[in-house]
Amino acid sequence: MNKDIEYGTGSWRNSSIFTIAIDIGGSLAKVIFSPLHLGRLRFETVETERLKEFMQLLHDIINKYNNGSQKSTIIIATGGGAYKFYDLLQEEFPDVISIKREDEMQCLIKGLDFFIHEIPEEVFTYNDIDGEHIVVPEHAKVYPYMLVNIGSGVSILKVDSPNKFSRVGGSSLGGGTLWGLLSLITGARTYDEMLSWAHRGDNTNVDMLVGDIYGSDYGKIGLKSTNIASSFGKVFQRGTQHEPEQDEISAETSTKDIQARYRKFNNADISKSLLYAISNNIGQIAYLQAKVHNVQNIYFGGSYIWGHLTTMNTLSYAINFWSQGGKQAFFLKHEGYLGAMGAFLNAQEQTANN
Amino acid sequence: MNKDIEYGTGSWRNSSIFTIAIDIGGSLAKVIFSPLHLGRLRFETVETERLKEFMQLLHDIINKYNNGSQKSTIIIATGGGAYKFYDLLQEEFPDVISIKREDEMQCLIKGLDFFIHEIPEEVFTYNDIDGEHIVVPEHAKVYPYMLVNIGSGVSILKVDSPNKFSRVGGSSLGGGTLWGLLSLITGARTYDEMLSWAHRGDNTNVDMLVGDIYGSDYGKIGLKSTNIASSFGKVFQRGTQHEPEQDEISAETSTKDIQARYRKFNNADISKSLLYAISNNIGQIAYLQAKVHNVQNIYFGGSYIWGHLTTMNTLSYAINFWSQGGKQAFFLKHEGYLGAMGAFLNAQEQTANN
Repeated sequence: MNKDIEYGTGSWRNSSIFTIAIDIGGSLAKVIFSPLHLGRLRFETVETERLKEFMQLLHDIINKYNNGSQKSTIIIATGGGAYKFYDLLQEEFPDVISIKREDEMQCLIKGLDFFIHEIPEEVFTYNDIDGEHIVVPEHAKVYPYMLVNIGSGVSILKVDSPNKFSRVGGSSLGGGTLWGLLSLITGARTYDEMLSWAHRGDNTNVDMLVGDIYGSDYGKIGLKSTNIASSFGKVFQRGTQHEPEQDEISAETSTKDIQARYRKFNNADISKSLLYAISNNIGQIAYLQAKVHNVQNIYFGGSYIWGHLTTMNTLSYAINFWSQGGKQAFFLKHEGYLGAMGAFLNAQEQTANN
Repeated sequence: MNKDIEYGTGSWRNSSIFTIAIDIGGSLAKVIFSPLHLGRLRFETVETERLKEFMQLLHDIINKYNNGSQKSTIIIATGGGAYKFYDLLQEEFPDVISIKREDEMQCLIKGLDFFIHEIPEEVFTYNDIDGEHIVVPEHAKVYPYMLVNIGSGVSILKVDSPNKFSRVGGSSLGGGTLWGLLSLITGARTYDEMLSWAHRGDNTNVDMLVGDIYGSDYGKIGLKSTNIASSFGKVFQRGTQHEPEQDEISAETSTKDIQARYRKFNNADISKSLLYAISNNIGQIAYLQAKVHNVQNIYFGGSYIWGHLTTMNTLSYAINFWSQGGKQAFFLKHEGYLGAMGAFLNAQEQTANN
């Protein structure tokens, strides 16, 4: 996915200094830089644990786009890895002007603020029925808003102005949970494999719906028979007809036999169910935090979203369902690069001031 | 676990009618009845899908405790299964006086109200540090409260008085999700097996902690290095040192080989991680709902809890963490029987009035 931004020739090179901004998260490391004289921003992502590959990418960028000159390069880093891998970065790039560390929250907000206000066609709404709609934010209405940043885990920030924000909550059930559990169950090796399963799966084969419990709608409390009552609620059932009774199970029944009984659920259905469960849950927590803090607009960022329609539809649906239409979910074309963008802008300001 | 309640000889038999109350949920069917002349309530649980076994249990109860007389027996039913299996119950027990259906929410609240006010040593607080403390509810302080009922899924009710309550929310991430996912991953056949794994596991082998991302605390926002940043966040990592590089993987690499790479995570660690994830998440949503509705006391009910200390500690910890000590989590000795208890009491009132 090409995410390059063109933004006026040379405007990203307001000094002779070459800036590489990096945001090293728990699972993914994001990189932003501006190729010499092109007036363009480039965006790259590498898995954090492929640390060698990541370092090589930074070397390649300096070699290709700054004539191999570390001496005129600044690396500006944010995310947890900016702290964890700081010494390693210094060893790897001993000749750069500096390696700076920037606060993650400040960078996220600065990056988001920039994308919202400066980049056309960046913000959009999405749901499966209405499709994608580009939003032109009316500046006056932007604050306060909520940023729900979904990476390996989830951080929820309330933003009152560019310089006034706080982390109001979060969740450990994020992208790392989805991909971790799915890879454990399915043996999948790539995000794309799991996403394509999720796309074609039918969650009703593993989820227990309201109708599975009631046989019909539970009208009194407004639950439709198609609402999910329990994610994966159909899995741990022993299927009495197709199975020996307890006393028929011999001591020799192997773990393999037992496991085989549960293998009747397919990867596609499992993937869709878990994508729904995690996305719905994030949507609900985001809604509740927005309600507690009296905020109407909720921006979803972070690499978890990855432009994936089912994910965005589920998040939008959750916000709309819980708020009864009172709150709005927004998405961003550069959803994964908020932190790196903020760090890049910080560096631009710092070098401009020197 | 013997949950019998003694409550004054004969006081449960205020008429010649023998009452069996049942609450048929998505995963478990709960039964309450009072053996003749014993002044005692008995509590039983069967898995809902073992429908034959469940019906046989009801026959056995009538045979043993009401001289086999359907003609002097009332069955009063609540939960989704009261609707789904209504016809089946009528076929199975054609000679009982009646089979009544009662609203699930009303029964839950009525049952909870009874346990709180009438049964000594029923309500308690628990955390791993302070242990269990029996609570004597001061009546004036009881309302309003929140009931978080955790079965296959989660229902959250706000209770203003015995007759004024509403369902304010819920979550599809409940007991069905924990047991479903765990049985898929581990092949476990019983709750007890999974609970004993969860007890001895070490979640830090699969969860990504704040310290795994930052290398230290993220002091600025008050996150300790031991906080869970991403549940299962360590699983979907490719472990570059121990694995062939991408171009070395031949087309013959079987699914089995790929799965084997992910089998380095053991069942105990996985079980603890998922128990933490689900319980923490319920705790957080419960706190947020209590905050939105300005309620201080939160009662946790439902068979998910099952007297399990790690579960209660996690729920208590979440409420305390998020509310900074401002809200209190309460548990109940008969946590799984709120709905059945309410139905039983409804039947007692109805037969007393006849």
